[in-house]
Amino acid sequence: MSSSIDIKSASGTYQAHVGRGILDEYLKKEIASLNPNNLFVLIDENVRKHHSQHLEPLFDKLSERVHLLSVPEGESSKSLAFWSEILDFLLQNHLQRSDAVVVIGGGVTGDVGAFAAASALRGVPLIHIPTTLLAMVDSSIGGKTGINHEMGKNLIGAFYQPKSVIADTRFLDTLPEMEWSNGLSEVLKYGAIRDRVIFDECERFLDGNRNKIPAKTLISLITRCIRVKADVVAEDEFEGGIRAFLNYGHTFAHALERACDYGKISHGEAVWLGMIAAQHLSKLRGYEAEGDFIRKFRPLYHFRVSAEELSSDELNRHMKSDKKRDGDHIRFILLKKWQHPVIETVMDEDQVNEAWQMVFRQISPSTKQ
Amino acid sequence: MSSSIDIKSASGTYQAHVGRGILDEYLKKEIASLNPNNLFVLIDENVRKHHSQHLEPLFDKLSERVHLLSVPEGESSKSLAFWSEILDFLLQNHLQRSDAVVVIGGGVTGDVGAFAAASALRGVPLIHIPTTLLAMVDSSIGGKTGINHEMGKNLIGAFYQPKSVIADTRFLDTLPEMEWSNGLSEVLKYGAIRDRVIFDECERFLDGNRNKIPAKTLISLITRCIRVKADVVAEDEFEGGIRAFLNYGHTFAHALERACDYGKISHGEAVWLGMIAAQHLSKLRGYEAEGDFIRKFRPLYHFRVSAEELSSDELNRHMKSDKKRDGDHIRFILLKKWQHPVIETVMDEDQVNEAWQMVFRQISPSTKQ
Repeated sequence: MSSSIDIKSASGTYQAHVGRGILDEYLKKEIASLNPNNLFVLIDENVRKHHSQHLEPLFDKLSERVHLLSVPEGESSKSLAFWSEILDFLLQNHLQRSDAVVVIGGGVTGDVGAFAAASALRGVPLIHIPTTLLAMVDSSIGGKTGINHEMGKNLIGAFYQPKSVIADTRFLDTLPEMEWSNGLSEVLKYGAIRDRVIFDECERFLDGNRNKIPAKTLISLITRCIRVKADVVAEDEFEGGIRAFLNYGHTFAHALERACDYGKISHGEAVWLGMIAAQHLSKLRGYEAEGDFIRKFRPLYHFRVSAEELSSDELNRHMKSDKKRDGDHIRFILLKKWQHPVIETVMDEDQVNEAWQMVFRQISPSTKQ
Repeated sequence: MSSSIDIKSASGTYQAHVGRGILDEYLKKEIASLNPNNLFVLIDENVRKHHSQHLEPLFDKLSERVHLLSVPEGESSKSLAFWSEILDFLLQNHLQRSDAVVVIGGGVTGDVGAFAAASALRGVPLIHIPTTLLAMVDSSIGGKTGINHEMGKNLIGAFYQPKSVIADTRFLDTLPEMEWSNGLSEVLKYGAIRDRVIFDECERFLDGNRNKIPAKTLISLITRCIRVKADVVAEDEFEGGIRAFLNYGHTFAHALERACDYGKISHGEAVWLGMIAAQHLSKLRGYEAEGDFIRKFRPLYHFRVSAEELSSDELNRHMKSDKKRDGDHIRFILLKKWQHPVIETVMDEDQVNEAWQMVFRQISPSTKQ
């Protein structure tokens, strides 16, 4: 069982394929159609560890000239230094425009690897093989690539579309606990801004053992998420307008991540809290965004930061320096009601502070309620 | 007197404006339409030296927040290190997506500056103000941006289109001698591959004093060249096919530049010699490419390298490692006849060597004829 979703972009339409055990078949097809002289593989070191027995013979079958580079775990690989290492690796191995780059891993590997593929020879064919839930539903879709800068995350990069995305849910069998919640937050975001059925399908996550979720449910859920993202991106590839809806909860989240130095909170945890804040701010603005569609997933998140360590003043300062601000005002994605997002500049700082209080209550329910 | 040429690309149509003394008017219009909070100016150090009395008051009139960065002369500014310095400059000054980057200079400033604008926040609005003949007719048009790598020139970069190009021929008043021949070679290339009138208009260059060429002639010539490039790029933005015609003479030229370590020969000199080689190879392949349309400009070129320092074996090796090769074969742009280019893989190395002999004769007419 598998599904294929068309993703439209200015540089043409490509497909994302979702299924269990589909990697060999789709990768073989893609490589046959690109017919590269050299096959370059950028692979997350942990994925390589867990899956090399399967993957390395597969690459060898696909090309006589395979060049493999491991991408170290963690945000530090999204640096100019490591991006430049990838370019050295590609160029010193005589990359040509007719070659192919395959990127296998989560958001970090995908972002830095795709930016390298976008920049080497001004762009070579790229295939994304996302291995985390987050990468399958979000970072591998839509063409955003990039690295971090001391001034902030993802400040250097390119919009660059792959030739195809192959999301094989078998990789999720070895996904660490924390990565599930990172993915779940983005999944819930798609539910909040566009597709109510996603909320229903997510109930399965509350049952306990994630590895018991049927492949069929997972494939359907991932497919729905990709479809939402593809629809939004097709309308607004270069982020001038409604693509901002995909940042629901993220303005708050980025501030939280910065306040925690990216260490004591994961992106997924921050996004989940950010969505709670955005929902609360929507209500304070008089919109109908009642219900615990997001909040009910609280048991799946394990916060390591306490509310005492955070202050809304500091968080507001971080929000004001975010790259998506419009001059000095902060623009939020709010919900007029569920599945009806709207972009709004909020001048009333008291309302924003109240939204932060709601976040603090989620983290430390007993002390700050 | 001025002209405006539409340039079509996947990301929309923009205009190149050509005229004498047009900078203030067009830049004011562009900035008014972009309405940036901050205006970032990347400017060639020599252009800044010669034109700061005019330019700096102009920028101050256009924006309250102007940030200026000088770009040092020479290829070494097309490095990853300097590109990263530009990104630091943009990001540390809190660049926002709604800001504008203005790039003023020749090919080096344009290539590295535009790649920085393409990569910062995944792309911010860019205005090209080319100040050399080469940059006006070639490097500022068509969206190629990039930097060099130890493995070769322009191996890292992006296809990124500006919001507009403003080519003010007043900058040519201070253009150094060598830069004129760099530009002339690309101008003659457009004559060779597409527009015979360019050859006629170039006769003015043979008269002697370039500064006496009437503004009208220069504007017409630059406009014709931009039109050829815009037509070709519109058909093939990402260089899959006929955009290669723009490399007429360049396969030979790149090998010459590498053999001379980029020091003892300029790009323009190498391209002029490359076009002579390509014409000769065309004739050896049985095509009708007679006539001295290119060769008659020999008096305007002053070669510092002698034929004794070059060998066709070494030059052929460099050609085979060029990024535009197709597997192990070298593809040349040849002329079926003038203004009728064709892409052809040449297997017969003797013919290529004969073409090199023709190059050697141009450099040292007395010793090698």
